[in-house]
Amino acid sequence: MIEFWYDFASTYSYLAAFAIEAKAEAAGLRVVWRPFLLGPLFAAQGWTDSPFNLYPAKGAYMWHDMARECARLDLPWQPPSVFPRRSQEAARVALAVPPDRIAPFSKAVFAAAFAQDQDIADQSVLAALLENLGLPAAAVLARAASPDIKQLLRTQTEQARALGLFGAPSFMRGGELFWGNERIDLATLQPGR
Amino acid sequence: MIEFWYDFASTYSYLAAFAIEAKAEAAGLRVVWRPFLLGPLFAAQGWTDSPFNLYPAKGAYMWHDMARECARLDLPWQPPSVFPRRSQEAARVALAVPPDRIAPFSKAVFAAAFAQDQDIADQSVLAALLENLGLPAAAVLARAASPDIKQLLRTQTEQARALGLFGAPSFMRGGELFWGNERIDLATLQPGR
Repeated sequence: MIEFWYDFASTYSYLAAFAIEAKAEAAGLRVVWRPFLLGPLFAAQGWTDSPFNLYPAKGAYMWHDMARECARLDLPWQPPSVFPRRSQEAARVALAVPPDRIAPFSKAVFAAAFAQDQDIADQSVLAALLENLGLPAAAVLARAASPDIKQLLRTQTEQARALGLFGAPSFMRGGELFWGNERIDLATLQPGR
Repeated sequence: MIEFWYDFASTYSYLAAFAIEAKAEAAGLRVVWRPFLLGPLFAAQGWTDSPFNLYPAKGAYMWHDMARECARLDLPWQPPSVFPRRSQEAARVALAVPPDRIAPFSKAVFAAAFAQDQDIADQSVLAALLENLGLPAAAVLARAASPDIKQLLRTQTEQARALGLFGAPSFMRGGELFWGNERIDLATLQPGR
């Protein structure tokens, strides 16, 4: 089992979302998809915006690096016209879909955000993604807005903080934390315990 | 040609210093060793300490990850009892040794800092490292304290900023920036232009 922790606004989480299944399968691992919100973790350390916006040199490099990585990995890439996108709504919906659909739904959200420059906080965008997967959009969106799901996302974000997460994507494997898409091979390949 | 930009206080630069020569040689590339100071770059974005100290979760992860990476790469590792070490003195000495000795001297400094927990700002530590390499310690240390070398380090640090560097290790290859030891393979293997 490997836990994949991601935020839908996170550029490098997009890369990980489209790589984790094949790498986990090759290692005989089941992937547990864990959406959470980076915002509260960033806010707790005094950041009110993405570090890529707060620190311009780091941001300029990230945009260049993402284009380079997407070209290398043969993934479509369209830099979002608004960054970071609000990811709370999409994360709630991901927690509201049937558990066996969270992977395809999450990949669809990432593609909408980073290959099609769509506003993934928009209910009609989320509804279209659900419908494309044959899911009952109105019912899922209603469930996503319920107190239970809101609480589940808060709990999951608090759990991320408690596990020592500070960025996304992150992976938990055998009780050990791996941060960054650059650690995806190590996280999937290291011997289990 | 590949430029290797590093700060002697940077943990991940230690990993890169002991990997870059073999990877560059395999790719037919000459390595240009470029010590600089992260401190002024961090200060310019409002940090008065290492981000690994300012952001405890990020720091806790880094110490765990460094131990894991050193084990994986079969590199000795002893977490420094003071972090970050002052790296200015060692960087000046690196710029004061004959150019064909900067690589072995720099690796010796990194080993002192991260395998032997030595204070690399200490003149007697630096003198011993120089002597181990058969270099005239007193003459090199005097040159390292000269206005020319001080200015050279300031210029090199300013050049790092102008190139868009924001962390270490960084690599420049064919005009392109690669940040982090995780990009060392991509930086050395990508086709030249």
